[in-house]
Amino acid sequence: MTEKIILGIDPGTQKMGFGAIKIVNNKPSLYKTLELNLTNIKDPHRKLREIYLKSKEQIDLIQPHQIAIEAPFYASNPQSLLKLGRAQGVAIAAVFSKNVTVTEYPPRKVKQSIVGRGDASKEQIAQMLKSLLSLKSISFNYDVSDALAVALCHFYNSNTLDLRNKSYTSWSSFIRDNPQRLISSQEGSKQ
Amino acid sequence: MTEKIILGIDPGTQKMGFGAIKIVNNKPSLYKTLELNLTNIKDPHRKLREIYLKSKEQIDLIQPHQIAIEAPFYASNPQSLLKLGRAQGVAIAAVFSKNVTVTEYPPRKVKQSIVGRGDASKEQIAQMLKSLLSLKSISFNYDVSDALAVALCHFYNSNTLDLRNKSYTSWSSFIRDNPQRLISSQEGSKQ
Repeated sequence: MTEKIILGIDPGTQKMGFGAIKIVNNKPSLYKTLELNLTNIKDPHRKLREIYLKSKEQIDLIQPHQIAIEAPFYASNPQSLLKLGRAQGVAIAAVFSKNVTVTEYPPRKVKQSIVGRGDASKEQIAQMLKSLLSLKSISFNYDVSDALAVALCHFYNSNTLDLRNKSYTSWSSFIRDNPQRLISSQEGSKQ
Repeated sequence: MTEKIILGIDPGTQKMGFGAIKIVNNKPSLYKTLELNLTNIKDPHRKLREIYLKSKEQIDLIQPHQIAIEAPFYASNPQSLLKLGRAQGVAIAAVFSKNVTVTEYPPRKVKQSIVGRGDASKEQIAQMLKSLLSLKSISFNYDVSDALAVALCHFYNSNTLDLRNKSYTSWSSFIRDNPQRLISSQEGSKQ
């Protein structure tokens, strides 16, 4: 039995999500999650330090085989972009300090891998995670679902498998065989 | 005899400067410098890892009491700004990993502290460093002089002394008594 843990990280300056999945015999399941709320930390260095220390702590706790980071490369304004870069930088440095391989994915690639559309909504991502990880309900918020999504995205991409299942060679063939998933995505977008 | 070492860091994605000064009885002198050339590293993660590891290595080697980082908050385009933020982030994380206090200064503040003008040229900064650190010649390039400048800027600001010397209460009084320094700065800008 092969077993692998992938930790997904969604770094941000206000909230940060950690989501780990466990892969057993090529099937992913939910392993551990954490949301870090940084909104009350006003000092920029204390914020970066918290991102760095909590990232190291989670890596120690979860002991992942691989790490995937959601890394947007745009922001609403230049100042936010710099802050985002700094948050990404300290999170990446936390991974370096543990000597684990890290792969970055832009949000569009994550959404494409999970929902099949680069412009999928956060609700659609969450709904799809529920289905893909066989969850009874979604008890986490969007920072954590984004982190789980990038972990799953890495699993699909690093295995060079089709998006969700070895037996599917394309998104369209998967949708053809799983129409209920497409419906739930559409429902999500109406919310 | 009081002694203090301040390490200045100028993080960048192409070149990076480290410049340490030693303060003995409130007088700064040159201690150690290093320029890191990152231009040959194309992979962005390898580049960030190099910044992180070399920053940690220099902190270990120099054992500074305080660290100052030159942190611009603008760049020629948004993509450069994100890269700059990431480089700053990993350098800051390297400092966190060593538990040394770190202070950031924008380039304008550094120039103001060293030359007395926020729009001073790199040549002017280098010329002034030569004078302030009593150097016979300038054997380092601009990445290192920027790093030394931010270390000196931190020394002046953290001591709440006047810019260059306890006996001078303003830049204009300093210039009045040291006209040769102003001349050398002007020569620098013509180069």
